[in-house]
Amino acid sequence: MNLIVNLCLLALPCIRLFANASPAKSEWIELSYPFSSETIYWPTGKSFNHTTEYANYTADGYYFSSYRISASEHGGTHLDSPIHFNKGGWSTDQIPLDRLIGHAIKIDVSSKAAQNPDYQLMPSDLEAWEESHGNIPYDAIILVFNGWGKYWPDKRTYLGTDTKNTSLLHFPGIHPSTCRWLINNRKIKLVGIDTASIDHGQSTQFESHRILYAENIPGLENVAHMDKLPAKGFTVYAAPMFIVGGSGGPCRIFAHFDANRCMVNLVDGLKSLNGFLWAALVLYALRFLFSRVLVRG
Amino acid sequence: MNLIVNLCLLALPCIRLFANASPAKSEWIELSYPFSSETIYWPTGKSFNHTTEYANYTADGYYFSSYRISASEHGGTHLDSPIHFNKGGWSTDQIPLDRLIGHAIKIDVSSKAAQNPDYQLMPSDLEAWEESHGNIPYDAIILVFNGWGKYWPDKRTYLGTDTKNTSLLHFPGIHPSTCRWLINNRKIKLVGIDTASIDHGQSTQFESHRILYAENIPGLENVAHMDKLPAKGFTVYAAPMFIVGGSGGPCRIFAHFDANRCMVNLVDGLKSLNGFLWAALVLYALRFLFSRVLVRG
Repeated sequence: MNLIVNLCLLALPCIRLFANASPAKSEWIELSYPFSSETIYWPTGKSFNHTTEYANYTADGYYFSSYRISASEHGGTHLDSPIHFNKGGWSTDQIPLDRLIGHAIKIDVSSKAAQNPDYQLMPSDLEAWEESHGNIPYDAIILVFNGWGKYWPDKRTYLGTDTKNTSLLHFPGIHPSTCRWLINNRKIKLVGIDTASIDHGQSTQFESHRILYAENIPGLENVAHMDKLPAKGFTVYAAPMFIVGGSGGPCRIFAHFDANRCMVNLVDGLKSLNGFLWAALVLYALRFLFSRVLVRG
Repeated sequence: MNLIVNLCLLALPCIRLFANASPAKSEWIELSYPFSSETIYWPTGKSFNHTTEYANYTADGYYFSSYRISASEHGGTHLDSPIHFNKGGWSTDQIPLDRLIGHAIKIDVSSKAAQNPDYQLMPSDLEAWEESHGNIPYDAIILVFNGWGKYWPDKRTYLGTDTKNTSLLHFPGIHPSTCRWLINNRKIKLVGIDTASIDHGQSTQFESHRILYAENIPGLENVAHMDKLPAKGFTVYAAPMFIVGGSGGPCRIFAHFDANRCMVNLVDGLKSLNGFLWAALVLYALRFLFSRVLVRG
């Protein structure tokens, strides 16, 4: 009888652990827009061009195709390297891989941005996030979600204008005071946003760029499909084209839910067992106390 | 009964000691060459060009730089999409992310390639790898290591020629029979090689390209720093520029040792159980004290 009780107490947590750690479906989330003639560039930039070198059957009877690309570094889903606004900052080839990959969070201000296309992410938005989810983790990648992806690739709604007149740009960004708050209060790797710039469209001084890049914190712009991401619990991989002296460049970005990874799952499993194990321990102690002290005593 | 309970209670603190004794370091391995005027392209391709849009202080007193890029898709560390040699195959934007990321193995034929710059990877090389390391895992990414990185970026040694005469190309590749063996006997995601082409330099019919791409198995060429990789136990991330209709494209490639990640996560999991493990230890000590000293005494 006692044997059964004891075995059950020990076995139940183990069963639960393995249940939690059972391999879930592997799922990669694409966070990049593909490059084509539709890809949105900064009004003063040069758009993406894809020209044919060869695309046909050869004299030997097999098919062969190859193309050339050309574009400004800053268009489509891309990286801003710190040197974009900081002469002594990292160029694209100098950013350590470790700064481009890491656990990430999403700050959702889409309801505010829907009311105001010039909205800027405020420190109070970060504080609200932390109230719900705990402190922004150490060395996090921060993604700012304005719900702007629904306008891509329509320039008039996404940028506020389809002209080259930059004074007509209207889209949300990050307020300079929020950048200062992040630098002074937290340690972050990278910021990303689902608009064309981390400074809002009406910015003329690009202060948020200058504040973050002075600290070698790069930016990701035109990040796609953020609606598929939760508020936390995922890892972001930002893989820019590896350009020597680059001020940025085309960047493939994808994410993975941490919970799907077997080992992270195991960690979560262990964490979730904490309470259960404590309960089992207390029960075991009580049972021991009963049988040895109270009954025999 | 008590033996089982005691052993379990004892085992938990031991796991903790083991965890503390194994500090694990997270490490990303760069497998790409950076793009510059030195980057090696196929003799008939257009080399990488990086031109300045602006790189100076603005009238407002802050620094700003931005550039343009242009190049053929097939040069430097890059992806070959199946459509490069298969009209109905995937273009770059059509390859699912899941086919570009996965556990990988390295086949080292550098000693044979050192003797013969026209060496082609044979089925017997795969069989020799499997004799040492077990079967090639399901859905693996296969990297072929010829030790060719030591020649980069010297065209004469890396390609065999610095002219545009493709009949002078000499570098190792993968034999067509090996591609057939892989398709018939194993399931793979992707092949990569540390030379300019998966077909060796003297190939005129590009049979290995045609065999693999007919099966929608893409290729990675000019993969860098493979000498830093073990024979197995790592994950490869291939992040190509996301080109609509692309026959390939610049590709950032990096790897992570599986063992390190597992240890990091395991340690994190065990740390979260810290309090419980200590309490279990104390309880066990008290229980021992009770039964041996107080009760028997």
